[in-house]
Amino acid sequence: MKKIGVLTSGGDAPGMNAAVRAVVRKAIFEGLEVAGIFNGYEGLIHGKIEMLQLGSVGDIIQRGGTMLRSARSSEFMTEEGRLKAKRQLKSHGIEGLVVIGGDGSFRGAAELVKLGVPCACVPATIDNDINGTQFTIGFDSALNTVIDAIDKIRDTATSHERTFIIEVMGRDAGDLALWAGLAGGAETILIPEVKFDLNEIITRLQSGSGRGKKHSIIIVAEGVMSATALSETLKAEAGIETRVSVLGHIQRGGSPSAKDRVIASQYGARAVEVLHEGRSGVAIGMQNHTVVDYDLDVVFKRSEDKLDKELYKLSKELSI
Amino acid sequence: MKKIGVLTSGGDAPGMNAAVRAVVRKAIFEGLEVAGIFNGYEGLIHGKIEMLQLGSVGDIIQRGGTMLRSARSSEFMTEEGRLKAKRQLKSHGIEGLVVIGGDGSFRGAAELVKLGVPCACVPATIDNDINGTQFTIGFDSALNTVIDAIDKIRDTATSHERTFIIEVMGRDAGDLALWAGLAGGAETILIPEVKFDLNEIITRLQSGSGRGKKHSIIIVAEGVMSATALSETLKAEAGIETRVSVLGHIQRGGSPSAKDRVIASQYGARAVEVLHEGRSGVAIGMQNHTVVDYDLDVVFKRSEDKLDKELYKLSKELSI
Amino acid sequence: MKKIGVLTSGGDAPGMNAAVRAVVRKAIFEGLEVAGIFNGYEGLIHGKIEMLQLGSVGDIIQRGGTMLRSARSSEFMTEEGRLKAKRQLKSHGIEGLVVIGGDGSFRGAAELVKLGVPCACVPATIDNDINGTQFTIGFDSALNTVIDAIDKIRDTATSHERTFIIEVMGRDAGDLALWAGLAGGAETILIPEVKFDLNEIITRLQSGSGRGKKHSIIIVAEGVMSATALSETLKAEAGIETRVSVLGHIQRGGSPSAKDRVIASQYGARAVEVLHEGRSGVAIGMQNHTVVDYDLDVVFKRSEDKLDKELYKLSKELSI
Amino acid sequence: MKKIGVLTSGGDAPGMNAAVRAVVRKAIFEGLEVAGIFNGYEGLIHGKIEMLQLGSVGDIIQRGGTMLRSARSSEFMTEEGRLKAKRQLKSHGIEGLVVIGGDGSFRGAAELVKLGVPCACVPATIDNDINGTQFTIGFDSALNTVIDAIDKIRDTATSHERTFIIEVMGRDAGDLALWAGLAGGAETILIPEVKFDLNEIITRLQSGSGRGKKHSIIIVAEGVMSATALSETLKAEAGIETRVSVLGHIQRGGSPSAKDRVIASQYGARAVEVLHEGRSGVAIGMQNHTVVDYDLDVVFKRSEDKLDKELYKLSKELSI
Repeated sequence: MKKIGVLTSGGDAPGMNAAVRAVVRKAIFEGLEVAGIFNGYEGLIHGKIEMLQLGSVGDIIQRGGTMLRSARSSEFMTEEGRLKAKRQLKSHGIEGLVVIGGDGSFRGAAELVKLGVPCACVPATIDNDINGTQFTIGFDSALNTVIDAIDKIRDTATSHERTFIIEVMGRDAGDLALWAGLAGGAETILIPEVKFDLNEIITRLQSGSGRGKKHSIIIVAEGVMSATALSETLKAEAGIETRVSVLGHIQRGGSPSAKDRVIASQYGARAVEVLHEGRSGVAIGMQNHTVVDYDLDVVFKRSEDKLDKELYKLSKELSI
Repeated sequence: MKKIGVLTSGGDAPGMNAAVRAVVRKAIFEGLEVAGIFNGYEGLIHGKIEMLQLGSVGDIIQRGGTMLRSARSSEFMTEEGRLKAKRQLKSHGIEGLVVIGGDGSFRGAAELVKLGVPCACVPATIDNDINGTQFTIGFDSALNTVIDAIDKIRDTATSHERTFIIEVMGRDAGDLALWAGLAGGAETILIPEVKFDLNEIITRLQSGSGRGKKHSIIIVAEGVMSATALSETLKAEAGIETRVSVLGHIQRGGSPSAKDRVIASQYGARAVEVLHEGRSGVAIGMQNHTVVDYDLDVVFKRSEDKLDKELYKLSKELSI
Repeated sequence: MKKIGVLTSGGDAPGMNAAVRAVVRKAIFEGLEVAGIFNGYEGLIHGKIEMLQLGSVGDIIQRGGTMLRSARSSEFMTEEGRLKAKRQLKSHGIEGLVVIGGDGSFRGAAELVKLGVPCACVPATIDNDINGTQFTIGFDSALNTVIDAIDKIRDTATSHERTFIIEVMGRDAGDLALWAGLAGGAETILIPEVKFDLNEIITRLQSGSGRGKKHSIIIVAEGVMSATALSETLKAEAGIETRVSVLGHIQRGGSPSAKDRVIASQYGARAVEVLHEGRSGVAIGMQNHTVVDYDLDVVFKRSEDKLDKELYKLSKELSI
Repeated sequence: MKKIGVLTSGGDAPGMNAAVRAVVRKAIFEGLEVAGIFNGYEGLIHGKIEMLQLGSVGDIIQRGGTMLRSARSSEFMTEEGRLKAKRQLKSHGIEGLVVIGGDGSFRGAAELVKLGVPCACVPATIDNDINGTQFTIGFDSALNTVIDAIDKIRDTATSHERTFIIEVMGRDAGDLALWAGLAGGAETILIPEVKFDLNEIITRLQSGSGRGKKHSIIIVAEGVMSATALSETLKAEAGIETRVSVLGHIQRGGSPSAKDRVIASQYGARAVEVLHEGRSGVAIGMQNHTVVDYDLDVVFKRSEDKLDKELYKLSKELSI
């Protein structure tokens, strides 16, 4: 193997640049050439490909977003699009591909693997919802962005003795809401993995209020319901006034945290090793404090609940 | 004069604590006693009053929110409520009052002045919308919170080549939107003081897109229209896809910026001086880099436009 | 068991307050009373003890430092001092003690255990140098403070094409330097666990300079040598000009990171469980993504090198 | 005039990039071409010059340092070097020059003005020490970096009940120390403009300690004496133990604050206007909330003390 390619795909996550940097530097360390593929699979199909050098990834480890940019590609959803992609790789002499992104990006890689393109996938999504790895790149950064927002909102909640509902990202996975709620000292945390009981929330708010606790923070993952809907429900069902804050896109941006930069470096380097060893169809991740690589199929299996039940239980006990 | 009181009222703003600290320390420096009135005018009516010492305001200069808390008071809207407030002040031996807050809080103070209570008002609101002062406490902090959010969103906007609409606070005043838009490098800034031309926005987005500019940031003050409404309009009128981010309550919180801590210290100290000199019905502020005090009536006069037209013109020229 | 005590000791670390909060809330959840012991072992000896309620730990999860304060105690170094401490615990009805701190604090706890006082120890130190746990409270926060500093210094290094030497904490353990160097994209990382080769550093700087790389960042743990000494050596041996930055005490402070707040919550809660189960002489920690408790003796054993050799190797490969 | 040049020189300051951006965009808005001169006067002499477009300054408004880099130039100190510089400008068709930097950079510009090169100077230095302007670019950002450090150190000071001496930049000007001390709630502030009285400091520390105040923060500008020297003096003269923190280079870096981005935009645009109007030998600045331009000679005049005496007095009163 002489040349590999690297692309980022799907929603951007802080640390993607650190992963790209690691891929490029590790590849050069191993004596490989690296081609940067811009705008994800869409750019791959249309040959938006440039060679990357050490200098190409200078001064990017601390930047949010992705220097390779990302895009949706409807064309790549078609067999024809994917064959074009394969031809582009061939014509550029690219013998292996590192795909940095989330679940959907990995599915794309799995299709290329079927066409005989060696692929190694690096999990990068703030949702932390990839099977087979305990941490994805971007999760820790987003988490810190969320608690920074909670800390700010708490200033107002305390000063005005109000209840706030803060909506965070997470359609199917409650990791961001759970960790942020625990780290932010939220009184109530609603996540998709656990059916919530409206009466319990109401009782908790009213009993807190009864013993003199005058402000409260509720974290809700977007996959449960919108903060606005919850606010309206609390008003209608129990006459409880709340304020709403939807954190939205700020959760995706910003300089990556130290931890995300480190795991991005670890994952990116491992992805290069995997390709260099001639393997394919592999995802990279972290299990029990160790960098692992595993079959890409593991990602797509209908998994058991990834929820850390101990942590959820702890969040309940501490928000007594 | 032997004893003054201090309260915070209205929406909280970063730097309110620094102002409270300055009031307490300056008063003690001048040989006065200081009573802290909790929960604004509502707490005043109900006698939520405690003496403050140097130690009471230790370690608060850097905290968001207000240690004196804030509240709405419908009772204070009535003559009877205000008379109760006056009686509380008298019974606690409080001979002058520092009111820290926004426009509405100043109106409350003006009513107390009519009843013979000496008041000095310190402008604290992130909206920067108080006549007679170029800067209110909290504006600079909120501004930095907003540009931090814009910087984060720009990461995503750039990576995905998208247009984002970011809604910031400002019902009647566009200062926050204008300064943040300029400092954040926004391509378009919509403020209440300037009627906007939808066609110009569309043309600008399309021509930018035409010359290869693939991402764009629009800042809209809430007083103009909601970001969501603008997004729908752009879609309906010109088929332009945008993403929306409503920054909301995070703008009010957080540790105050250096500048806000400094002006809070200046304003709080001056308010004590004003009361100590036996004056009343005075607002504190900044004019041309100098701390000033001026008649409270100036605040309520239907003012000319406070908008900095030079700055607005500059924002247009630089977003060419 | 009806009542436990909690103290913080040794150098402060971000997240200590989150741990105190978890101890108090978990204890109350379990039906226990909690006494806060102020100023560490010194305060224990002198009975600086107050009962803590849910409200005592409100609004502290996000604060740096420790609300219980910390202190050195020469008196506790004596048998007599420790007997006084034991008597204080007895007279206050405290049947178990949670000690939050570093290595030295744990040794103090071990002495109390010998006197029959049940103790559970929570590791909190930015150095990450406690045997038996992969992460201590405060390490992740300090790490993020360090990379924030590196990012700032890089701005200057790049603008002026200079080499900077940044000295970070770590007398015996290089974790902070290693992680920060990797996350900060440093070209050279010097840690106590690995003997460094001055010639290699010089060669690396000169060859980087030879191929056009004009700025460089060297991270040195204080346990290796001072940044100033290294700077002088590079000047004397190879005529290489460098600038020096000693990060110092800022590394200990600041709002704790999300991760530190979460592990502080986990560790604090587990410490209460351990005492509640009637156990003693136990340290809490994290092993392979799981909260663990283990014999306090493990902490004091002359351990093998804790250095993550894979990570060190990676840092070398990526700084090619 | 058809083409202007822009360079940054001297120590870098946050906001330099925002100023470069404003110069480029304003020039293009005015129909001018802009040449970027890299590495300051040194690069000018050696023709490191590239044309800048709108796209060249995209995504830089938020970045610390300077994309044009900076350097010292001993060659420019000579008549011959300056004549070379003039020839380079001529051969590149550059008819006017915007110089962004501090005092020394302005002196260089004054020399070019003597040789007939139209120059407009934009003040950018964290020291805020340029005559004729109340604010330089970078001061507000550095100030916020310093108070962030003070806030962190205060966590430790409070937890351990210690006195800290924090050394900040400022050889001749105490603005950074004064504002940071006031905003950081420091008990003592030592600046070059005011002779300090060691006995007063000692008395203050001892009396604070006497009335139960157990921690204290002293800010010292580097121009007064080193923090280490002060610490040793306090120990020797009064047996007072202190800890030292030298903030150093982190003060120069980081993303510029909102205010610095705004004034950088204002100053950069005004500099282009000045050149476009055919003027030369002009400095840009802020006086009483208004952007001004004034004769470059004003900068070099032995000025009266720039110190804001009111602010210094306030800092004394509030640290009672």
